[in-house]
Amino acid sequence: MKLFDRVVYQTRRQALMAGMETGLIWIQGNELSPKNYRDNTFHFRQDSNFLYYCGIDQPGLSLLMDLASGDTFLCGRDITLDHVIWMGPQRSLSELAEQTGMSGVLSEDALHAMLQAAGSAAVHYLPPYKGESILKVHAYLGVAIEDVTTKASDRLIETVVSQRSIKEDRELAEMEYALELSRDMHLEMIYEAKAGVKESHIVAKIMEIVHRHEVDTAYPVILSVRGEILHNHHHHLTLQDGQLVLGDFGAESSMNYAGDITRTVPVASTFNSQQKDIYQSVLRAQAAAIEALKPGISYQEVHLLAAKQMVLDLKDLGLMIGNADEAVAEGAHALFFPHGLGHMIGLDVHDMEDLGEDKVGYDQEVKRSDQFGLNALRLGRKLRVGFTLTVEPGLYFIQPLIDQWKSLKRCDSFINYDKLTPFENFGGIRIEDNYVITNGGSRLLGPSIPKQVEEIEFLSGLDKYIA
Amino acid sequence: MKLFDRVVYQTRRQALMAGMETGLIWIQGNELSPKNYRDNTFHFRQDSNFLYYCGIDQPGLSLLMDLASGDTFLCGRDITLDHVIWMGPQRSLSELAEQTGMSGVLSEDALHAMLQAAGSAAVHYLPPYKGESILKVHAYLGVAIEDVTTKASDRLIETVVSQRSIKEDRELAEMEYALELSRDMHLEMIYEAKAGVKESHIVAKIMEIVHRHEVDTAYPVILSVRGEILHNHHHHLTLQDGQLVLGDFGAESSMNYAGDITRTVPVASTFNSQQKDIYQSVLRAQAAAIEALKPGISYQEVHLLAAKQMVLDLKDLGLMIGNADEAVAEGAHALFFPHGLGHMIGLDVHDMEDLGEDKVGYDQEVKRSDQFGLNALRLGRKLRVGFTLTVEPGLYFIQPLIDQWKSLKRCDSFINYDKLTPFENFGGIRIEDNYVITNGGSRLLGPSIPKQVEEIEFLSGLDKYIA
Repeated sequence: MKLFDRVVYQTRRQALMAGMETGLIWIQGNELSPKNYRDNTFHFRQDSNFLYYCGIDQPGLSLLMDLASGDTFLCGRDITLDHVIWMGPQRSLSELAEQTGMSGVLSEDALHAMLQAAGSAAVHYLPPYKGESILKVHAYLGVAIEDVTTKASDRLIETVVSQRSIKEDRELAEMEYALELSRDMHLEMIYEAKAGVKESHIVAKIMEIVHRHEVDTAYPVILSVRGEILHNHHHHLTLQDGQLVLGDFGAESSMNYAGDITRTVPVASTFNSQQKDIYQSVLRAQAAAIEALKPGISYQEVHLLAAKQMVLDLKDLGLMIGNADEAVAEGAHALFFPHGLGHMIGLDVHDMEDLGEDKVGYDQEVKRSDQFGLNALRLGRKLRVGFTLTVEPGLYFIQPLIDQWKSLKRCDSFINYDKLTPFENFGGIRIEDNYVITNGGSRLLGPSIPKQVEEIEFLSGLDKYIA
Repeated sequence: MKLFDRVVYQTRRQALMAGMETGLIWIQGNELSPKNYRDNTFHFRQDSNFLYYCGIDQPGLSLLMDLASGDTFLCGRDITLDHVIWMGPQRSLSELAEQTGMSGVLSEDALHAMLQAAGSAAVHYLPPYKGESILKVHAYLGVAIEDVTTKASDRLIETVVSQRSIKEDRELAEMEYALELSRDMHLEMIYEAKAGVKESHIVAKIMEIVHRHEVDTAYPVILSVRGEILHNHHHHLTLQDGQLVLGDFGAESSMNYAGDITRTVPVASTFNSQQKDIYQSVLRAQAAAIEALKPGISYQEVHLLAAKQMVLDLKDLGLMIGNADEAVAEGAHALFFPHGLGHMIGLDVHDMEDLGEDKVGYDQEVKRSDQFGLNALRLGRKLRVGFTLTVEPGLYFIQPLIDQWKSLKRCDSFINYDKLTPFENFGGIRIEDNYVITNGGSRLLGPSIPKQVEEIEFLSGLDKYIA
């Protein structure tokens, strides 16, 4: 278990407590998640808030902060000889508390008693997202099951969001490490994406990198010749010449910071002209967005800039018609680009999504739109120095969606439905990188990962082992 | 999604209903399990009871059987265009119900209403093991959270256990497929286990096989030079000459049947004489157990036979003294063999463990012992034709346990504590295979996987790519 210096966690906890008034703050770590029975569990993933405030990557713990005294306690069950036999020697609760600069430890019974004595109104907790954590809020605080989510502390959520939104340099370094692994994974895909290879074979090669580094992916791997299915987690198809492979995957660092990269590559090692046209449009949209990144601009505005760039290109290709600004205002582009330009990234790939998408990505100034496409944008608010985010435009030809819009004549003053037929089996293209907002504008996080047409075609054509 | 013929599921459901009397049977399928926020989930694993009775490997469903009418309903939410955009085209609820021979479908609202109308006393459900399923029993049946487990239906549990305990040929075939993959994984370990290689590197090679076949492991991989830590899931050590590597891992078939194999191999490609002595003892204990397998013998008795074989060998090596039968009766062997000889295996690696270990592995005739070691035996009852189980004796030198026993002088008339010093960093050895009980005795499931000393040493010494 890799930890920052205890001062880091102490400082973060002090800043958190300074943003609050009275009562107790209770942050639950995660339990192991059962697969098919209690003791057969998924690989452990610690809660990100818990990691942020104490870094301890172990199940069954929680954190209690007393706003009156400023004390912080690590709460949980201590190890027994039985644990040692089955799981090997482990650090005691006290050792863990000491290493992360806490005031002391509390048994589960003592924690329960302290929470009950305080009363649920005086305990600030974050909205739980796992059944087990909901049940623990109910058991320990006596909150009715149906109220567990609504009684989470808004003040605590806001304070945590404002703190975690601005990344420290040590966090950026972790994200860059995650992105180095993610780069290796994507290079593997570019080399392996040849006709006759199964998607699952490429996934296996990618996962080998992940396992070799004893980390996990930041989210389930998307790797498919059917890139138009946005969250396609099936990998049973065999690559054929003429197809595109869309790969959206990234590693976590050993401290659980996420990388989130998408590349789209041709199976045939060269793009055909139709593919190249769409690919260049996505790339130009991404470039326009990156160019616009700076403190003070809203990400909603950046999203719309990227959309407009795509409309201009789609007009050149004859797929769209009419005034580009009006088309974007009407949301016509969302037929081809039905998702958001990006989201915050950090300890979570959609950073802090457990705290509420709108509480992280929107505020009083910028509200979430309810227009199809734009409503899927997770981050809309004005950017600040230290924000880290993804920039991931995409263009897709989703037949069921096209069929629906066409039958409704939706946006037909902007969309040239007759010209869409040749794109029926096109699939989709997305290109995604991760950026940090700086004083001057923005900076690419992690290594540059090939994405220019010439780079992709050059690498695709290589036999990896003689490269 | 691979399914058996609908008749298989219809027959199983009819047999289940024939074993019950009145009311409704409600079997929940699993939901996706969140990692760090609701929408970032672990790889989906369906509930095994749900798989057994309808085979549908998709989240968010449940099964309702009406004992009065004999009708079975597939319950859940139907797909929308939004699902199609994000997840691709999917079969409708009705199509799924039809393919698995059900009477019809119910929406979540209709299910909720039917359960409420019946009243919780008339609804038989299985004990839920995930927070989400506990919450759903509470929400749909109005059972208080603290009563959800105890109010599960004993009659339903017993009927399911008796049905799932006897494997059909088609289930054996699935297990054999899982064991073929598991064999490939273990051969990979034998080839890769060389000095200087990291444990995580071998895990990565093993996992590549799993991912290439688009399946999952049946349980988290144990692979360690510290084999004496029974459930060691860390893989950060580097193999050194003179060490042993213990690998306990297996694949699931695409229909989620488990393989569970353990092999222990020398890093140096030959065992030293101390290692060979202990290895041969474990192998002899496994052979004695396998020899004894037959309908009518209790697995507790087989466990004790294996234990006695190990005591005889440990006496020859001078590590134990006194009468072997008495040593076993006292549980002295458990210092070296602190776990059970095996467990049922099937759709779960510990088959049906969600329904209660004792309800699966014990009965009126054979009760679970509370003696250290023997109390960890999951399967004790008399064997029947069609039972599938693991045979997995092991010998370990667990220093904290030895220190404790020695200081308490525990079993010191059977254990020669002074002779244990040379074994301080020995680690542990376990050898495990899967068997089905037949009329004549038993049959090895899956291919024969090398385990004789000469076989292991021969394969370890090979360079895989010229093999």
